[in-house]
Amino acid sequence: MRALTYENNLALREIPQPKRQAGESLVRISMAGICNTDIELTRGYMRFTGVPGHEFTGIVEESDTPALLKQRVVGEINIGCKKCSYCLQGLERHCPARSVVGILNRQGAFAEYISLPDRNLHRIPSTVGEKQAVFVEPLAAALEILEQVRIEPAARVAIIGDGKLALLVLQVLRPIGCQVWLFGKHSSKVRIAERFGAITASDGEKFDVVVEASGHTDGLAAAIGMCRPRGVLVLKSTYAGHVEYNPAKVVIDELTIVGSRCGPFEPAIRKLAESQVDVTPLISKVFRFHEAVEAFDYAQQEGVLKVLLNFETVTR
Amino acid sequence: MRALTYENNLALREIPQPKRQAGESLVRISMAGICNTDIELTRGYMRFTGVPGHEFTGIVEESDTPALLKQRVVGEINIGCKKCSYCLQGLERHCPARSVVGILNRQGAFAEYISLPDRNLHRIPSTVGEKQAVFVEPLAAALEILEQVRIEPAARVAIIGDGKLALLVLQVLRPIGCQVWLFGKHSSKVRIAERFGAITASDGEKFDVVVEASGHTDGLAAAIGMCRPRGVLVLKSTYAGHVEYNPAKVVIDELTIVGSRCGPFEPAIRKLAESQVDVTPLISKVFRFHEAVEAFDYAQQEGVLKVLLNFETVTR
Repeated sequence: MRALTYENNLALREIPQPKRQAGESLVRISMAGICNTDIELTRGYMRFTGVPGHEFTGIVEESDTPALLKQRVVGEINIGCKKCSYCLQGLERHCPARSVVGILNRQGAFAEYISLPDRNLHRIPSTVGEKQAVFVEPLAAALEILEQVRIEPAARVAIIGDGKLALLVLQVLRPIGCQVWLFGKHSSKVRIAERFGAITASDGEKFDVVVEASGHTDGLAAAIGMCRPRGVLVLKSTYAGHVEYNPAKVVIDELTIVGSRCGPFEPAIRKLAESQVDVTPLISKVFRFHEAVEAFDYAQQEGVLKVLLNFETVTR
Repeated sequence: MRALTYENNLALREIPQPKRQAGESLVRISMAGICNTDIELTRGYMRFTGVPGHEFTGIVEESDTPALLKQRVVGEINIGCKKCSYCLQGLERHCPARSVVGILNRQGAFAEYISLPDRNLHRIPSTVGEKQAVFVEPLAAALEILEQVRIEPAARVAIIGDGKLALLVLQVLRPIGCQVWLFGKHSSKVRIAERFGAITASDGEKFDVVVEASGHTDGLAAAIGMCRPRGVLVLKSTYAGHVEYNPAKVVIDELTIVGSRCGPFEPAIRKLAESQVDVTPLISKVFRFHEAVEAFDYAQQEGVLKVLLNFETVTR
């Protein structure tokens, strides 16, 4: 099958189709999304080689579970050992022996086929379009914040960053009733944030909660500076680079920093099915899969939001 | 009066006796302790100049409050504006306009006299000795951890550092019933920790809670490495230097980092009065106040714990 692979460079290469293991389903990818993490992987993050891609939807072509056959699905990306204390607690995404689709020891979704454990798959209702379904994974990551941190309706919340994840976080937090500021560098993206109800001008006051979703190494120090004493800082960005700062302000102001990664899929699917979240303005361009390298270049251009790869045109 | 002051160097100098403001009491210092923060101040932390010192006990010599006159007291070190939202919530120690004894815009305790608002003073029962009373402030800082973080009796807790604060944190956490590991570099201090019930050999497992109290810039990265997924890291150290690290592990493992500073005085006084905490092994040496510069040098030597300054011999 054809796959986009990274080994020193990104290229479309022929690789063997994945072998479906017991308890797994073979999914033919129909649409996939390029995440900032994918771009960071090509910059050295995780010392990654292989097939990236972890935002996708597709059709189950082979499965031992009849209810999954021919169904449109999305897939959770962490595959745990099912034996350790994390897996037994339902925290498979923190299994120390896990593989992660397209990130760690597991083939990603920028390929014609992927094989995943049945338990990782979630059926997508017909009310959720193909392009929308690709957003289940990042939307779940946005919802993860609410699994970790209690945000009060009267809270002053700031989001640093105006990228895809930042705009999803904004849409997840606004329905709490809180005021949400969003600080970004791209006027076109900031305008989208304003349409979603973000305040984009600072009033000089500090924030109860600051979400760092800028994807830049200077985001952490900026977030610390914006947090009120005893405030909460949610860290969403992962990148290849190091940050340098003095943690004294974290101690003096008794800040709480919460790292936040993958989240729950079912609420994300519900929110998309009920149109509680609008991802349409977040889609910059849809490329065909054979243009994947070009799509990666495009995704890194200034002002670009989500770039999708459409596999429907792949000749089989 | 005589005071130990820092301006380019530490020296005993003659400075004016503080003028007692309305609502304040004048305290004649009888005993004071040298904290790592004092040492960091002489290394550039906070760009400090003036009289350091924030761990002390003394006798009230002048006050408008009769109940305080002639009493032995300790003093909380944060003085807020009493008007802002933090002060009104009882969080005067986070008042953005606060001064901090011996650290920020306020004369410290390494002087014959200090003037403090009556509300900052706590009477010390006769069952608490003079040297013990100096430990109220750092013991309150250790107790602050329990005001911020719920630590379960079944938790695996690690303390990084074997200094004064680390050994107080150990004594505060052990009564919860949890297992506490302590990782230090000085065999004499590690032996004291063992006497207080610490486990000092790693079993290779990660920890639910890691308290970083090493006072070193490499402590944060070490603490992150020791924390289990979804674990809690309590940051206690403040220092002049910067740290450099990649926050990706904080995000991937969804760690929570909690900065922790000053704590509640009354429980600290209770614990000392009831001998729940033993500070005697933590006292390395008592210097007379006129030897304060020498005492600072001594406090920075390898293996030294708390160094006290005794003011009783000061000629008046």
